[in-house]
Amino acid sequence: MPPPLKNDRLLRALQRQPVEVTPIWLMRQAGRYLPEYRETRAKAGDFLTLCKTPDLACEVTLQPLARFPLDAAILFSDILTIPDAMGLGLYFSEGEGPVFERPVRTQANIAALGIPDPEESLRYVMDAVRLIRQELGGKVPLIGFAGSPWTLATYMVEGGSSKNFRYVKGLMFQQPLLMHQLLDKLAQAVTAYLNAQIAAGAQAVMIFDTWGGILTTRDYLDFSLRYLQQIVANLTRKYESQTIPVILFTKDGNEWLESMANSGCDAVGLDWKLPIATARARVGGKVALQGNLDPCVLYASPARIREEVATILASFGQGYGHVFNLGHGIHPHVNPEHVAVCVDAVHSLSRAYHVKENQ
Amino acid sequence: MPPPLKNDRLLRALQRQPVEVTPIWLMRQAGRYLPEYRETRAKAGDFLTLCKTPDLACEVTLQPLARFPLDAAILFSDILTIPDAMGLGLYFSEGEGPVFERPVRTQANIAALGIPDPEESLRYVMDAVRLIRQELGGKVPLIGFAGSPWTLATYMVEGGSSKNFRYVKGLMFQQPLLMHQLLDKLAQAVTAYLNAQIAAGAQAVMIFDTWGGILTTRDYLDFSLRYLQQIVANLTRKYESQTIPVILFTKDGNEWLESMANSGCDAVGLDWKLPIATARARVGGKVALQGNLDPCVLYASPARIREEVATILASFGQGYGHVFNLGHGIHPHVNPEHVAVCVDAVHSLSRAYHVKENQ
Repeated sequence: MPPPLKNDRLLRALQRQPVEVTPIWLMRQAGRYLPEYRETRAKAGDFLTLCKTPDLACEVTLQPLARFPLDAAILFSDILTIPDAMGLGLYFSEGEGPVFERPVRTQANIAALGIPDPEESLRYVMDAVRLIRQELGGKVPLIGFAGSPWTLATYMVEGGSSKNFRYVKGLMFQQPLLMHQLLDKLAQAVTAYLNAQIAAGAQAVMIFDTWGGILTTRDYLDFSLRYLQQIVANLTRKYESQTIPVILFTKDGNEWLESMANSGCDAVGLDWKLPIATARARVGGKVALQGNLDPCVLYASPARIREEVATILASFGQGYGHVFNLGHGIHPHVNPEHVAVCVDAVHSLSRAYHVKENQ
Repeated sequence: MPPPLKNDRLLRALQRQPVEVTPIWLMRQAGRYLPEYRETRAKAGDFLTLCKTPDLACEVTLQPLARFPLDAAILFSDILTIPDAMGLGLYFSEGEGPVFERPVRTQANIAALGIPDPEESLRYVMDAVRLIRQELGGKVPLIGFAGSPWTLATYMVEGGSSKNFRYVKGLMFQQPLLMHQLLDKLAQAVTAYLNAQIAAGAQAVMIFDTWGGILTTRDYLDFSLRYLQQIVANLTRKYESQTIPVILFTKDGNEWLESMANSGCDAVGLDWKLPIATARARVGGKVALQGNLDPCVLYASPARIREEVATILASFGQGYGHVFNLGHGIHPHVNPEHVAVCVDAVHSLSRAYHVKENQ
């Protein structure tokens, strides 16, 4: 039996239950802005080795928690582990980002894709999850994650990062049924992967739809959200009598907040563009909200950081269901001391919004 | 006296007046997808020389009109001509995009910036406008353009393109008054520049707010839209008894359509994410709308292109005030024959939506 959770604010907030202070974690909280991360990364040699070595992935996952009283750990990994396990030959080239040696563009390519067994070809991820859970000792919950089928498809079809998404949209417009075959396989793979993370110890999961925001409303609903719903419907939502909340995040997806809130997920991630009050009014009481500080605020002075945190807390206002976060991953040049200011501001300033809940 | 305009659909649509068919032009219609453009560009040697040589800028401006029955020409130039004329040392490095030798980051840097006299340091642009107007001979109207103050500021402060906007947002959060000083100077410069283009012959103008979409709602209204309104209020809106319509385009600005529609402009540019019916309902009858085909549709088959054009025309429906366009610049790898299909589809399929207007 794992030790009982000492801090379950995150899980409660994601289920819109009372908390004494607003929980906070930060996208890419284990990352290049931390000198200790850069050291472990150098030790690993390259990014993919860091992801694939459970000891090292565990080490960097825990680094930000040693510095800041964050309310969650998030597995250190990459969304492209699934296509890598499908045999596409992933590597990271300096400056260029992820590259696949064998992009997926034809019916034959898609037919040849298998659905990876998470405890086989993705065992290094499950081992990392088990190790992190053990090392956390119940301090805070561990969040697992995966990329969305559409987002994984963009990298797989383009063969890496893209600016204009020529091949993946070409395929979508020219051979929509083939694109659906690919997305369906990816939805099955993501479901198996996240369920395996849950079985290994992940206490909440987040799905990153990094590129859903490049689609029209019609195409987002059909080629991205449909598969997110399919995954959410098939995830393990209770594990060892604990509820496993699911967070969806579509970058540049503010147009579709209501649709995301109706997908069956527990929480929706926000960027910083909309005031969180507007987002809350739009989703009603359907889901919790995660966000929504502009990551660039962390370049400002401690006083300004506190002001901006206060603005977001006031915008969300009284009531349940807010997990504080940045609207995007933390930038590599941010001063870690500013992160400390932000975390402290969220904890100290949010107390006032939760008083009534405890009475 | 310039010759009378033979095709004024664009100007009528921008003013929400009856037209017999929906006008169309394409962002970056003079560009790398055309072999004749690549030839002229090679002759010029580099991009900036192409912009700065009125004969060549005129040549490439007219190239797409020789191929396709487009309803407007747009000046071939770059939004960074203003900061270049301010003496920041603009150059384009292969693969890296625009770079400024002397970025603007301090009070002293901002104080030192002068407002360029368009007929002096930007005379090459005005000469291009005059030449294009003359060469067009009244075939279609000529659109002039500029970058928005916020967008120009991002390049000037970052020293070029950016991914995380560290310096410009750092300045905005840390020294908002200084940022406002910079934006006010840029608003004056853009106003003078566009008014000079109008005096030289531009028959409509468009302001590109390429980076407004990286801001929160509060910061967009304060640091970008405020200056767009200031410019719009000071533009020459009647020239030689012709109305000069103004189009605003904020990339990733769908959150703020209503605010843009209330800025005093005549038309708002759209990306492809929202159905144009939704955008039309949101702006009411306040402004015309320009857009909103996903540029990637041009990678699809002619049949699919016609289908997508039909969908947008049906979404806008009956009534005035639609200028067909892509939601972003045309991509370099698009087949020019597909552009011909798109232009023809707009003209032939839109006739049905304008029948009643002519009765």
